[in-house]
Amino acid sequence: MKFKTVDWIDNQVILIDQTKLPLEETYVHCQSWQEVGDAIKTMIVRGAPAIGVTAALGYLQASLSISSNDIEIFKNELEDISNQLISTRPTAVNLAWAINNLEKIKNSYQGNDLNELKNLIRCEAIKIFEEDISINKTMGSHGAELIDSGDTILTHCNAGALATGGYGTALGVIYAAHAQGKNINVLADETRPFLQGARLTCWELQKNNIPTTLITDNMSGHLMSQGLIQKIVVGADRIAANGDVANKIGTYMVAVLAKRHNIPFYVAAPLSTIDLDTKSGNQIPIEERPELEVTHVQGKQICPHDISIRNPAFDITPAELVSGIITEKGVVAGDYEKKLPELFE
Amino acid sequence: MKFKTVDWIDNQVILIDQTKLPLEETYVHCQSWQEVGDAIKTMIVRGAPAIGVTAALGYLQASLSISSNDIEIFKNELEDISNQLISTRPTAVNLAWAINNLEKIKNSYQGNDLNELKNLIRCEAIKIFEEDISINKTMGSHGAELIDSGDTILTHCNAGALATGGYGTALGVIYAAHAQGKNINVLADETRPFLQGARLTCWELQKNNIPTTLITDNMSGHLMSQGLIQKIVVGADRIAANGDVANKIGTYMVAVLAKRHNIPFYVAAPLSTIDLDTKSGNQIPIEERPELEVTHVQGKQICPHDISIRNPAFDITPAELVSGIITEKGVVAGDYEKKLPELFE
Repeated sequence: MKFKTVDWIDNQVILIDQTKLPLEETYVHCQSWQEVGDAIKTMIVRGAPAIGVTAALGYLQASLSISSNDIEIFKNELEDISNQLISTRPTAVNLAWAINNLEKIKNSYQGNDLNELKNLIRCEAIKIFEEDISINKTMGSHGAELIDSGDTILTHCNAGALATGGYGTALGVIYAAHAQGKNINVLADETRPFLQGARLTCWELQKNNIPTTLITDNMSGHLMSQGLIQKIVVGADRIAANGDVANKIGTYMVAVLAKRHNIPFYVAAPLSTIDLDTKSGNQIPIEERPELEVTHVQGKQICPHDISIRNPAFDITPAELVSGIITEKGVVAGDYEKKLPELFE
Repeated sequence: MKFKTVDWIDNQVILIDQTKLPLEETYVHCQSWQEVGDAIKTMIVRGAPAIGVTAALGYLQASLSISSNDIEIFKNELEDISNQLISTRPTAVNLAWAINNLEKIKNSYQGNDLNELKNLIRCEAIKIFEEDISINKTMGSHGAELIDSGDTILTHCNAGALATGGYGTALGVIYAAHAQGKNINVLADETRPFLQGARLTCWELQKNNIPTTLITDNMSGHLMSQGLIQKIVVGADRIAANGDVANKIGTYMVAVLAKRHNIPFYVAAPLSTIDLDTKSGNQIPIEERPELEVTHVQGKQICPHDISIRNPAFDITPAELVSGIITEKGVVAGDYEKKLPELFE
């Protein structure tokens, strides 16, 4: 990886500033947990797994900055900070998950050695960071087996190093295939309205020397009809127990076109994305995001004033359109209702 | 219609400035055929039928401005001007068609009365203008029979008053249904890369008080899956003898999704768009347009420097996905190979 999304050096949380990409590669050095919270709030870092890792390191930083030597005061202060960190992006599941993991370590500590507790926190935070990357790498190596040399692979949105601790889910598969020496090309959907494909996927693939071509979201069907796409790999925001996949708006249209053209459509996601408590996709609420994302591009208004807008952020791809789900435990294909629970055994 | 795309008043060609839409409604008053040529070149007017009408009026304006009383000199000067007008947008079929019609009138005139010839030219130019509108209105009334009160209709790109002499093909159907008192809503795809839907379709429908909602191109599939779209109406750039339709990039994806959800997918186009010499869609060349349209939105760069781009301007929707073709001679549905030639009888 030719850049780091998030890093921990000399007790600083270092983040690539994703609000400046793709035209500037700059890094923000957070000196305090407050600065980490601000970076999450202002989308300097985005992508649920990346936010989770960043928050964990912010929590670690907070634990080192509390001056009290009284372990009860320390615990109370840290709990207060936890709540503030969680509130920076209230809907980001990985953020709460990471912070709650650290809180459990802290709350279950019965000893009286503050340095020992701080060390336990450090180990857990670093583990959250490192495990994110190692899970993605394992997933990537499983997924890479599905990719052939010569393939052109379409991806949608950004499920890459920038969205995770530093390797990526869908793009992790692409990085792994590339690392195996396979000669691949990537087509990146620009992914309106927020343009994660144009801004982020193109940037990180180009940075890692993977041949990438940008298209608008309405072009992939035409290119499929011309025989120019061999595989599709996307990430997921949530996967239901029956294999239905919630992912960035537009994923469903790509999947329907892929089916028509007999092109394999893969979803790469860690087990933490599979929610066995959600029976099917129609139980997944679809977030409606601000109109401004549609009406303006990089601050420029593209439509008349006062026009109505719809801006659903996600859609549901039914399991029947999913050729395989790539996880850190291997690839699952078909009969998801039976096979997905087995991954957790 | 609450505005005029093109008009002929006091020997001036008056054009709504489409480069300023949707945020400013301003009109350009062309005092000479050279100004008309510039307006076509700089896309103040766009849309093949609108360009054809504008060029015809530019030709009429030129015929009035030539000072020579010698009919041979007059004819030669006008031929020279014709070539210059045609060269402003060399690929626009309607432009050459309109100019060539006027040239035929001129060249076949055997008399020696310059005023009589100028009058013939005036009648033909005005006829080209008025016929465009009347054909669109007839087409609209045929198409409106397919629309039910309560329908939400999806359209792609701009096949409206702004693209024609002043009524529209796909949007002509919508205007006609609305005029019949049907309670309809329109969903407009923004139509990347050039944003004709966001900029033009939204503007003209809003201007005519038709309830319109803007979406990005990757949202229509999701909305179809939610049962929120009842009909689809689009225009066409060319229709082959077998019913395959070339239209703005993204049309094909909409048609495939419509098929999956059993939503009628209609194409509205005048007979002049049906090319019986083109046997099927795969004979239609797909223009690849400049990269800048994809890399920049309203002058703002959205992707890294030096990323590869594809920018096919059109795609082909196979006839099997087309529920009906709406023309000024009525609606044709199914067995296009047999029925399309009958329209010309």
